[in-house]
Amino acid sequence: MTAVRALWFRDPVLSILDQRELPRRTVVRRLSRVEDVAEAIRTLAVRGAPAIGVAAAYGMVVAERGGRHTPERAAGLLRATRPTAYDLFVGVETVRRAWASGGDPLAAADAYRTRIVEECHAIGTAGAPLFATARRVLTHCNAGALATVEWGTALAPIRVARRNGARLFVWVDETRPLLQGSRLTAWELARERIPHAIIADNAAGHYLATGQVDAVIVGADRIARNGDFANKIGTYEKAVVAHENGVPFYVAAPWSTFDARRASGASIPVEERGEDEVLEVGGRRLAPSASRARNPAFDVTPAKFVTAYVTPAGVVRQRAVGRAISEAARARAFAPD
Amino acid sequence: MTAVRALWFRDPVLSILDQRELPRRTVVRRLSRVEDVAEAIRTLAVRGAPAIGVAAAYGMVVAERGGRHTPERAAGLLRATRPTAYDLFVGVETVRRAWASGGDPLAAADAYRTRIVEECHAIGTAGAPLFATARRVLTHCNAGALATVEWGTALAPIRVARRNGARLFVWVDETRPLLQGSRLTAWELARERIPHAIIADNAAGHYLATGQVDAVIVGADRIARNGDFANKIGTYEKAVVAHENGVPFYVAAPWSTFDARRASGASIPVEERGEDEVLEVGGRRLAPSASRARNPAFDVTPAKFVTAYVTPAGVVRQRAVGRAISEAARARAFAPD
Repeated sequence: MTAVRALWFRDPVLSILDQRELPRRTVVRRLSRVEDVAEAIRTLAVRGAPAIGVAAAYGMVVAERGGRHTPERAAGLLRATRPTAYDLFVGVETVRRAWASGGDPLAAADAYRTRIVEECHAIGTAGAPLFATARRVLTHCNAGALATVEWGTALAPIRVARRNGARLFVWVDETRPLLQGSRLTAWELARERIPHAIIADNAAGHYLATGQVDAVIVGADRIARNGDFANKIGTYEKAVVAHENGVPFYVAAPWSTFDARRASGASIPVEERGEDEVLEVGGRRLAPSASRARNPAFDVTPAKFVTAYVTPAGVVRQRAVGRAISEAARARAFAPD
Repeated sequence: MTAVRALWFRDPVLSILDQRELPRRTVVRRLSRVEDVAEAIRTLAVRGAPAIGVAAAYGMVVAERGGRHTPERAAGLLRATRPTAYDLFVGVETVRRAWASGGDPLAAADAYRTRIVEECHAIGTAGAPLFATARRVLTHCNAGALATVEWGTALAPIRVARRNGARLFVWVDETRPLLQGSRLTAWELARERIPHAIIADNAAGHYLATGQVDAVIVGADRIARNGDFANKIGTYEKAVVAHENGVPFYVAAPWSTFDARRASGASIPVEERGEDEVLEVGGRRLAPSASRARNPAFDVTPAKFVTAYVTPAGVVRQRAVGRAISEAARARAFAPD
């Protein structure tokens, strides 16, 4: 288990570490209505695709305990929060089925949570050998314990490799506009004393081009059947530039991120968030009052730029990803949306 | 002439618009000692390669009027401020020669200033036809009037095309860490009511990949003989991603940015600035206290990613850039460092 936990459930309340406040303050929010859970997801108090899925799974339990909603209505509230992360839909559907069929939603949510944590640990074990020699690793956004409940996706192999004795250094893209890298990934790494340096997103290309990055690893919000994937805005640029420089580029994700019904990345819905996230920094407006902004929260990276996917079942090379996804979908035995 | 001027000289004082304060406040700094001019350049109160060159040229005049320094010592003070922009060295050397040979340094500085403004206007005229059909333009950092005294380099063709009736829309990279895009380029565009949207630097790739950018144009801090060039950190990523997507990528610069003695970009000195520029945003620390940062201010983009250079003598395709540079160097008839 890792030192950080993004959320925990004590019947009937879901508690989350409010990620908007980190690293300045450690604030726990107690969510006792499904509407509060939905709002926490919408506002990024809880974020990261796997963590969103688990939060939403418990959000269904919160709704059931509250007694004010049908399974369908609760699921609708949670699904409407954010469109891109597939895990949200998987987490909601997993519990909705249990609840609608008269089962215990809490048991379903607990099992879902356990599965995600175990899969993230398996990702760490599977991916660690990639970092036995790749000592200088670049990551984008936060795909650590905060994003996944425990371990992380992109950070799990780094954590396991480090425990196995690898000496690693992590380049942390700050990840504008919301700075999940400099606020959250750096916070996780600092707590475990993993050497790292924060860089402006703009600087990643410089380090890739000058031979100072041995590998790139990121998480994902949704992976299509052909291996195209959506992840935090800016991921696409890093993937293209890594490819240009012959630096391996890895995508780490649990099965809940793989969308087997989506043929390619072209149809993945990309959330656009409010312009104030770009126009303001730390709550202060730095742009001219007459200027507007655009704020896509994700981009889609074509599979051709991915060296391999780090999955709970091992490292899957780009060409083999379709088969791995199909098997994961059959194991799940339902389509969540 | 454009509505914005970055600096002006009233004997014996150099006045600059303090670019650290924009767009929130319009603050003019009066610099009456060469040390003050050097400090203004070092701290980015005045920035942008051509503007740095002109400020340094007048800095030499300020030094001569002050009577405390030899031409060599004044030149040394100014040259030590920032290593990457070639214009700094050209501006200093232009006035040092006049002063050291008994000429009027003010006449030399005035002539240098006039030349830079005329060259920027010529860049605008030469480059405007590129934007007759390329209506959605991406730019990085600020290469406008603030960066060049008047007109700009990257923004000059946009300004001239607009005055010629072209309907343009500008994607403005915010340009972390110092936000010269969202603070300065947006401010210039807003004053002239040129439609634009600020985006996180991370989002440029998304718009390039989804067919929403017709051309990219940037300025430069130093261009080597083979066409490799240094510019604000992040430029390299935009160039690689533009190339990947078949979007034309233009570099606009006056002759003072062309370093004919530098064979390639490999040896261009890249300034690394203080980590606080990354760790703090708008004066507030957002990163964990235990985390460190790295902060290269520039990167080097290989010539192969450049479609063409927009020069005072016209649009020069990438293959022809070496000859154009040699001619410019012969016309200047001195090597500044």
